[in-house]
Amino acid sequence: MSDPTPPSVAWVAADWGTSHLRLWPMGANGVPLCRIDSDKGMSSLTAADYEQTLLTLLEPYMVSNAALDVVCCGMAGSRQGWAEAPYAAAPCTPPSFDTATRVQTQDARLRVYILSGVKQAEPADVMRGEETQIAGVLAAHPDLDGVICLPGTHTKWVSVKGGEITGFATFLSGELFQLVSQHSVLRHTLAPQGWDDGAFKDGCLEGTATPNRLANALFGLRAGALLNDLDPVAARSHASGFLLGMEIEALRREWQGRAVVIVGENEIARAYATALELQGATAEVTDAEKVTLAGLSAAYAQMK
Amino acid sequence: MSDPTPPSVAWVAADWGTSHLRLWPMGANGVPLCRIDSDKGMSSLTAADYEQTLLTLLEPYMVSNAALDVVCCGMAGSRQGWAEAPYAAAPCTPPSFDTATRVQTQDARLRVYILSGVKQAEPADVMRGEETQIAGVLAAHPDLDGVICLPGTHTKWVSVKGGEITGFATFLSGELFQLVSQHSVLRHTLAPQGWDDGAFKDGCLEGTATPNRLANALFGLRAGALLNDLDPVAARSHASGFLLGMEIEALRREWQGRAVVIVGENEIARAYATALELQGATAEVTDAEKVTLAGLSAAYAQMK
Repeated sequence: MSDPTPPSVAWVAADWGTSHLRLWPMGANGVPLCRIDSDKGMSSLTAADYEQTLLTLLEPYMVSNAALDVVCCGMAGSRQGWAEAPYAAAPCTPPSFDTATRVQTQDARLRVYILSGVKQAEPADVMRGEETQIAGVLAAHPDLDGVICLPGTHTKWVSVKGGEITGFATFLSGELFQLVSQHSVLRHTLAPQGWDDGAFKDGCLEGTATPNRLANALFGLRAGALLNDLDPVAARSHASGFLLGMEIEALRREWQGRAVVIVGENEIARAYATALELQGATAEVTDAEKVTLAGLSAAYAQMK
Repeated sequence: MSDPTPPSVAWVAADWGTSHLRLWPMGANGVPLCRIDSDKGMSSLTAADYEQTLLTLLEPYMVSNAALDVVCCGMAGSRQGWAEAPYAAAPCTPPSFDTATRVQTQDARLRVYILSGVKQAEPADVMRGEETQIAGVLAAHPDLDGVICLPGTHTKWVSVKGGEITGFATFLSGELFQLVSQHSVLRHTLAPQGWDDGAFKDGCLEGTATPNRLANALFGLRAGALLNDLDPVAARSHASGFLLGMEIEALRREWQGRAVVIVGENEIARAYATALELQGATAEVTDAEKVTLAGLSAAYAQMK
């Protein structure tokens, strides 16, 4: 009996974010052999830890006589990450392989590249990782003239036209929602999970109409729980809706009458789709993993 | 040599909030003999702890052959406090002594009364303690037709006319600011203290004009720090200004063309005064301790 032959890996795609690391060992046919999920994100690593993290996770795929190319996007390229990768300045095409930062490794079996982020001077804004997802969306829709929404704790709205990122805006509505639901006086008022579609939509409409009342509307949920036994799932959904209603309205000029692509299919992505529909806009929803891989693959193709 | 004669105390005024307790042993002439500050607020006590807390702090003022009246306002009257005092329903005059809740004590030397809070059905809102400060303001301005602003973590805006509380609104802008500055991605971007008047006013005007961009404006401060070395004191002041600009604009119908009284003279009270001035409104600023004592004294006068 012999050991199983190790799978043949052409290169490795990597999405190295603040709290997570995802690795896709890629076959020669451009299809990932598997996905490796790790919690070794930037926030849990010092610069000295990155190489060993890769060596440990990729060990089954390493061969002694050849260097393995690893193409990374995300916060590994930030000042607090592995090695600082410069920002491209929008308006620009999503950064290509030409501007990637080669990271020096001690082990010659690794050849690591980190793709550039994108910055915007006015209003000041930055992204690291999302630009690669944008490249992935554009690989499938090269003529897209519209806005791409990348939902998350810090949601990015990216305007694209003629293959370029023409501008973008980050909203930390998701982080505000987490802070309010976990750390504020509302922490016992908002359910930790659950969804009430009607309450979400009511919140959206309220946030759209009277965004300046946010701090009052939130306290009102607490008072509603005290006085009227407001349901915690309805309270949670209403608060979430209020914040997304504000955000959608702030971006009306970006999405109204334009193509909208939402990257992601989780609960938060569905919430954005619902909030847009409520305003009469229809979004195309696309798979986040697929566009990340498409963007990293486009960069790898430029390297060869 | 004899012990010093204990000061003669007619009654005790008490402001028993979430995080603090303030006691004023009052002389027969209506002037406090001193102020006792304690951190034994509601959040650090169970119902069983309140009596002993009073006995310990008031021990020097107790006499064995007479009961000492203690008149309390604040969260001691909440469901999680010492004894639940009912809410009066606005519109109403500030609750009088008639509706105070007598708390049963084991020690007959204490006679404790907790004043009612005020609730509002639509939009749902509640106050406990501020109604007593309102009574104190009205004691000095019985004909006030305007709005009283009580700044704090949860700021109350109370409309008064003809001696009545006609309606009110709570804004938790202060808590949002604390969460953002201490627990969000901005915690290293915003200085823990310091004040930049220009940045505060810029933030106010931005929050007034584009409140729905709050979550974007906050991320913009982080990006400004990354890209342009934005000063942390300016960032802090800008964020505070944005939140207050939103709040002031939301309340325009309440303060525009009306008398405005701000209760308090601390940094946050001054920030509200500045934000109002920026919109052309002038507020009278009054001392918070003075109006609290005036309100508690008015209730005690009704008892006799």
